[in-house]
Amino acid sequence: MEYKVSSQLMYNAEEPGTLVLNIRALQGDNESLVIEPGTITYLDYRSDMDRLLVLPVVEPGEVSISYSSVVKSQFDFIDFSGLSPQPVSELNPAILLYLHPSRYCQSDKLTRMASRLFGKIDNEFEKVLAITEWIYQHVEYLSGSTNGETTACDTIVQMAGVCRDFAHLGIAFCRALDIPARYCSGYAFDLSPQDFHACFEAYLSGYWIMFDATKLAPLNGFVRIAMGRDAADTAVCNLFGKIYGSSIVVNSELISGTMDPVFNTMNSSVGISYR
Amino acid sequence: MEYKVSSQLMYNAEEPGTLVLNIRALQGDNESLVIEPGTITYLDYRSDMDRLLVLPVVEPGEVSISYSSVVKSQFDFIDFSGLSPQPVSELNPAILLYLHPSRYCQSDKLTRMASRLFGKIDNEFEKVLAITEWIYQHVEYLSGSTNGETTACDTIVQMAGVCRDFAHLGIAFCRALDIPARYCSGYAFDLSPQDFHACFEAYLSGYWIMFDATKLAPLNGFVRIAMGRDAADTAVCNLFGKIYGSSIVVNSELISGTMDPVFNTMNSSVGISYR
Amino acid sequence: MEYKVSSQLMYNAEEPGTLVLNIRALQGDNESLVIEPGTITYLDYRSDMDRLLVLPVVEPGEVSISYSSVVKSQFDFIDFSGLSPQPVSELNPAILLYLHPSRYCQSDKLTRMASRLFGKIDNEFEKVLAITEWIYQHVEYLSGSTNGETTACDTIVQMAGVCRDFAHLGIAFCRALDIPARYCSGYAFDLSPQDFHACFEAYLSGYWIMFDATKLAPLNGFVRIAMGRDAADTAVCNLFGKIYGSSIVVNSELISGTMDPVFNTMNSSVGISYR
Amino acid sequence: MEYKVSSQLMYNAEEPGTLVLNIRALQGDNESLVIEPGTITYLDYRSDMDRLLVLPVVEPGEVSISYSSVVKSQFDFIDFSGLSPQPVSELNPAILLYLHPSRYCQSDKLTRMASRLFGKIDNEFEKVLAITEWIYQHVEYLSGSTNGETTACDTIVQMAGVCRDFAHLGIAFCRALDIPARYCSGYAFDLSPQDFHACFEAYLSGYWIMFDATKLAPLNGFVRIAMGRDAADTAVCNLFGKIYGSSIVVNSELISGTMDPVFNTMNSSVGISYR
Repeated sequence: MEYKVSSQLMYNAEEPGTLVLNIRALQGDNESLVIEPGTITYLDYRSDMDRLLVLPVVEPGEVSISYSSVVKSQFDFIDFSGLSPQPVSELNPAILLYLHPSRYCQSDKLTRMASRLFGKIDNEFEKVLAITEWIYQHVEYLSGSTNGETTACDTIVQMAGVCRDFAHLGIAFCRALDIPARYCSGYAFDLSPQDFHACFEAYLSGYWIMFDATKLAPLNGFVRIAMGRDAADTAVCNLFGKIYGSSIVVNSELISGTMDPVFNTMNSSVGISYR
Repeated sequence: MEYKVSSQLMYNAEEPGTLVLNIRALQGDNESLVIEPGTITYLDYRSDMDRLLVLPVVEPGEVSISYSSVVKSQFDFIDFSGLSPQPVSELNPAILLYLHPSRYCQSDKLTRMASRLFGKIDNEFEKVLAITEWIYQHVEYLSGSTNGETTACDTIVQMAGVCRDFAHLGIAFCRALDIPARYCSGYAFDLSPQDFHACFEAYLSGYWIMFDATKLAPLNGFVRIAMGRDAADTAVCNLFGKIYGSSIVVNSELISGTMDPVFNTMNSSVGISYR
Repeated sequence: MEYKVSSQLMYNAEEPGTLVLNIRALQGDNESLVIEPGTITYLDYRSDMDRLLVLPVVEPGEVSISYSSVVKSQFDFIDFSGLSPQPVSELNPAILLYLHPSRYCQSDKLTRMASRLFGKIDNEFEKVLAITEWIYQHVEYLSGSTNGETTACDTIVQMAGVCRDFAHLGIAFCRALDIPARYCSGYAFDLSPQDFHACFEAYLSGYWIMFDATKLAPLNGFVRIAMGRDAADTAVCNLFGKIYGSSIVVNSELISGTMDPVFNTMNSSVGISYR
Repeated sequence: MEYKVSSQLMYNAEEPGTLVLNIRALQGDNESLVIEPGTITYLDYRSDMDRLLVLPVVEPGEVSISYSSVVKSQFDFIDFSGLSPQPVSELNPAILLYLHPSRYCQSDKLTRMASRLFGKIDNEFEKVLAITEWIYQHVEYLSGSTNGETTACDTIVQMAGVCRDFAHLGIAFCRALDIPARYCSGYAFDLSPQDFHACFEAYLSGYWIMFDATKLAPLNGFVRIAMGRDAADTAVCNLFGKIYGSSIVVNSELISGTMDPVFNTMNSSVGISYR
């Protein structure tokens, strides 16, 4: 499958400053990037986890960014039936940091809850599926119900949130159960209304497997932008100086291939791992 | 200067599990490491930021780790008088993540406070010195006053904490002012009583500069073990399974050279940057 | 039934100060109160809700309080089958304040959770029973797991607590559902080990009905000391000045009558209302 | 001085429910109250602390309340120079509950901070003045910066708030220093823009003394509506059922006498105590 993803963002700079954008598809191809005013000379930075655009804004005024890319979606189906959990001692130590609590995922506070709710499930994939289902059943998707300070623990109490909050809670439960987990932002096919989306990935038997507790978009229609510990690492935009966002338009469309949408469902044993 | 640093740690394993230790000097030399029982075959992992020991514990029982190393202390004095702040747009993008809030350093909640208290100081080194002095003046060093869930915001309200809390608050204020900052654990010469210590490093004009708001040990007597976003990344030990710590003995002694102790003081313009 | 309840409390005063004790049975009879040193002249204060002893401690030293009373247990069984909920507009306005959130019972944060978990139950007694059962099933009774700052929202996340935390959560859920609720401290027959105990009362169809989500002591063996919005109002002791508690011994024994222990159980429609 | 105070409130009821209003002047005279639709038969409730209107809303639709009153302002100036603090043991025990922490005033968390900032001031009036001044200096008055969950501890960290938050912080500091304190809502002369206002009262040497850390309205132009532990007790309106506020208009004007505005200032020793 091939997707055409695009985003147009507008900012108002009251004074000079810097925009750090995190909107490029991690494996984007045929990319187009138009920044206005054209005098802005941006810096392009690529890591394993993200592709940042650093834009120094020298003069006050409006800044507009228009990005599009064609992305070939590449992932594997991994069957976890019969796979046993990987002990922490056999993990690649570079993965261990995805067990640490982070700003929005206070896994250290959730060990008892995670253990009581999900501790008895042996198969790790089923365990994370159960987490995903629990969140889907207990948390109401409600635009505007949370803000940039809302944490996984807040979401448990409030029982409402948006994709970001669903992902944070999934990550926090996983880490509390000694399963590495990370946040993943991206473009999502068939998400309505179109917007940037967030999921989480759990590290199971050597694969990063994608989970989406919102069930609002198919797992196999995701185009990844960035991975990180939580939303703090993958913000669409970090603003330095008096610069304010004014509008965002996001789109994702299938341009070749057909897609048979896959969602997290109980009793499945097959996960999706993006390459 | 050369330091001999050492630590002896004891754990009780009620069941098989894994210990991940973060106790080796980052630039240790002449290292000795004795683990008992000797049947434990550990994995050694080195990154830019830390050196992990991953110990699978196969049988219940006592585990003891005895480590020592001789470390040549290497750092530079950087004079910041007259240096202007580095704009975010000129930072190496790999450094940007040290501007993100983390588990214990909710810099996103502290922008107004940091700006009101320290925002008017132009020189960035002086700004971080002022942060360090504020913490020193306002927070009481009180063993046992905090726990593993205590955050920078908690410390502002409680006005008490230990080295870890002092460092978290320093980091949070720096990030709230768009200054990258990270946590640093290590051995500390002349710290009484001897224990693992924690400081923070701020990224100023291209250098990671060490700050210690506790003023309990000289900045130039620090032997770094690990750097990370906060204490979540640099724990002396992460325990997986029913394994419990029973004792820790830590030591650091000067074995060659003389040291003229340096502490953070107002009106200084010289910082210490470890290599 | 008649109970003999007693408590012995010891305090160490490092300097002069004041002790405010809240240990007398609300309907105590045949009371004995011995305070040492005998020079302390206490003030006795009685309200509808509690009976305070205010003890000025003039000299440093040990203070011991020894209290006992014989209490005739008086309560009614109220059958709620078929009773409809009382609308807020028909409540005695003096009761309305038990709908307000308080220090440990942030009912304002729990409206969605309470509504989703219990909102569909029509009968109000069954609603509070369901709350009680939910707490009993989800929260682990674990001595020492919480402290004087722990709130109802914390307990939801931690899933552990002591009687005080069980009561706070019950109260918070009730208020979130527009059911007045208050905290109740007392002596509890058949509680093991013996200690002061806490329950909560919900105001249903004109009666304050007792609930105990810990199920650790029979509802009909409770001797009430104080009622209030939460533990902040009913502390066994408030200490002013450098005075520290050193020991507490509590006891409750049945001295006449027989008791057929009653606990909160699902499918019951009968509640206990103390006079 | 005589004030004419008035308020017009509009609500939209999507379904039947109950409004509990707390808008009447505590010592109102010549009162006018018009409620539409006129079919609503309200209940009037008066306590020492407030005067509630309980309005059952039987049918969906718009509800409007129009209130006005003429109030003779009655208060005394109390000179605290030379007055010593009243020990807790000499307080009327009925006042003790104003020492307890409450929903928005977690005084239990602020004992160290309050003691370090204000503990050395002997005169209690000066102590509360210093609290008031500290809040005025440190907290920015910023409409919309807080919400119904914001607590005194949040305000310390955020350094911004509205009158309600200023009052909560003042109350929390007082209680942390063993000074009884309560929240006070009312009409405020010369407040711009006109709105309901909030102050706090501290209990000093037998008098409830008014303090206003916002300094936005004169202390001697306040017409009290309600007192309580914090905003939870004195809400302008508590809504039960799907009823939503649509507009509020508030006014206060001087109709007889002249007023020489009094604000809290350092170095004053005279407080205002409303009768």
